Amino acid sequence: MAEHLSQSELDYPFKLLEYFNGFRISKAIFSACELGVFDLLLQSQKPISSVEVAQKLGTSEDGIERLLDVLVAIEIVDVEVVQGTAFYSSTDVANQYLAKSSPKSLHDLIIYYSQTIYPLWNNVVDAVREGKNQNEKTFGLPSEEIFSAIYRSEEEMLKFMGLMNSTWVIDGHDIVTAFDLSSFKTVVDLGGCSGALARELAKEYPSSTVTVLDLPAVVQTAQRHFAQQDDTICFQEGDFFEEEIPPADLYILARIIHDWKEDKNIKLLKKIHKACHPGGGVLIAEALLFENRRGPTMVQMFSLNMLVQTEGKEHPPSHYTRLLTEAGFRDVQVCRTGKSYDAILALK
Amino acid sequence: MAEHLSQSELDYPFKLLEYFNGFRISKAIFSACELGVFDLLLQSQKPISSVEVAQKLGTSEDGIERLLDVLVAIEIVDVEVVQGTAFYSSTDVANQYLAKSSPKSLHDLIIYYSQTIYPLWNNVVDAVREGKNQNEKTFGLPSEEIFSAIYRSEEEMLKFMGLMNSTWVIDGHDIVTAFDLSSFKTVVDLGGCSGALARELAKEYPSSTVTVLDLPAVVQTAQRHFAQQDDTICFQEGDFFEEEIPPADLYILARIIHDWKEDKNIKLLKKIHKACHPGGGVLIAEALLFENRRGPTMVQMFSLNMLVQTEGKEHPPSHYTRLLTEAGFRDVQVCRTGKSYDAILALK
Repeated sequence: MAEHLSQSELDYPFKLLEYFNGFRISKAIFSACELGVFDLLLQSQKPISSVEVAQKLGTSEDGIERLLDVLVAIEIVDVEVVQGTAFYSSTDVANQYLAKSSPKSLHDLIIYYSQTIYPLWNNVVDAVREGKNQNEKTFGLPSEEIFSAIYRSEEEMLKFMGLMNSTWVIDGHDIVTAFDLSSFKTVVDLGGCSGALARELAKEYPSSTVTVLDLPAVVQTAQRHFAQQDDTICFQEGDFFEEEIPPADLYILARIIHDWKEDKNIKLLKKIHKACHPGGGVLIAEALLFENRRGPTMVQMFSLNMLVQTEGKEHPPSHYTRLLTEAGFRDVQVCRTGKSYDAILALK
Repeated sequence: MAEHLSQSELDYPFKLLEYFNGFRISKAIFSACELGVFDLLLQSQKPISSVEVAQKLGTSEDGIERLLDVLVAIEIVDVEVVQGTAFYSSTDVANQYLAKSSPKSLHDLIIYYSQTIYPLWNNVVDAVREGKNQNEKTFGLPSEEIFSAIYRSEEEMLKFMGLMNSTWVIDGHDIVTAFDLSSFKTVVDLGGCSGALARELAKEYPSSTVTVLDLPAVVQTAQRHFAQQDDTICFQEGDFFEEEIPPADLYILARIIHDWKEDKNIKLLKKIHKACHPGGGVLIAEALLFENRRGPTMVQMFSLNMLVQTEGKEHPPSHYTRLLTEAGFRDVQVCRTGKSYDAILALK
């Protein structure tokens, strides 16, 4: 278990005040992303003044200067002062993860956090009180239809897919290499969204055929916005809760189980088990709680997030083992990656 | 200047993801405060289960359990597991700063952060773009009339006064002892709000007469909600921008200057200089930026906050020295307290 906040907090609550300020740090970074600050700094050949940043991005000079100074304070932007004028430049970390054009960009994740999750979390009190998601209070959307809320418009669908895509761009490689999956020749990623995780898998196991199965609108948006020139993955339109699941050697369920209630998940896993080739399996990618639920902190936060946004929650490995066993799978193996998402493999 | 985010962030952006998660940590603590979690844990004689917390606070069991587990992760709540059931108890830090009944409670500050500042910061992008506060977009209130927005209802006035009160309960003593103020026999705290800073001053300098001057509605609310049995401070109704300022030896301006534009502040300081007894002075309490504006981080955040909420900003000491000198004051002394707010004293 974590140690207590230092006793010196009793004299003055520096750490608590830092926690209270957390939302400002998040929003400062998110806002800079939304305004295009990191893209401009990346493209600029030399450090530039706040006046120039304001002109290029169409913002107020005073506002952008305050924002840039905050980004300097948290070490995401660099500054050098020449004859009283501050000139700002990017850092390696910002270039890699915050600029939109970087292959490892978290830009889309940030947009989703800023425009969807931040407002949802304004209603955590009600989520805890009612024990249900706050899509209705936050966005005027019915709370029972999670994906009707998440996919309420093409723009929103694209944002959510961007979020998923960002995650697998940084975490996907760890997921597909958590176990040796080379013996599975046909792989179907159920709810594979933009295809980012499927691409990682196809890259790692070039002799496997990898298909993303998702709702028709999602597949169409994936092909329009996330397709890559040398794509070796396939897309198939379908609803794996309502329709038949195509036969395959391996099924991926990446961040699917945590959205739903237990009965729905067991039904899905049984259906997968039935469709699965003998000797095949299922790979679950989720953020795993410790068995005693005391951490990791980030996963506990994700679980509270699931309350605010879905009907599911995060779980420890034993929960997934139980569901998989109940659905008929055997030989459940768990791999903690040390990153945000972990992997569980089970065989038929 | 701060060091760069560690190079290892390039391999995996742990620290960045922590920054992205900052708003969730803030809101988890804020929500627990709003739900009364810390008061219940303080009052409880023994560790209690999440089921009991849910019953007593009228929340869902599942929701409160996830919230409590997050609070345990960030070391604000304690847990012990007995035969598979988790029992939660408070920590010293939570009892001192988060429970409402504690004399050092930050409860009111948290409510203000959660219900007013958090939603305002959802519009930082527009604040930076437009260079002005977001009271209109966030709350439908005119952006020019800052205090009409802040004091838009008795409930909102009370919340804002609670915020100010909380701050001076933890920072007030450092402000009034930053300089020896014992020679000033009559003190007027202009915009002294709930009277919390004035009380600290009266306690430290019992032979001085301390008066809080604020708008009539503020004074009435202060007397109704913040009066203390052994109060030795006086209240006077007035508008120090529009009306005469009463003569005194020392004027306090605590978090006033940072709300307004320079011309308005100089006009105010000149008016104070005129009313001030010979040999008297003015004590300014503000969060001070470093001279080169590169920190402290928290003050840079405050300055961005001022953009979102007011027409002012935070400044380094030289700015206040210039304003005070222009208004006729001399012998400007600056004291950095090392806490959130600093002190500047100038004499007539």
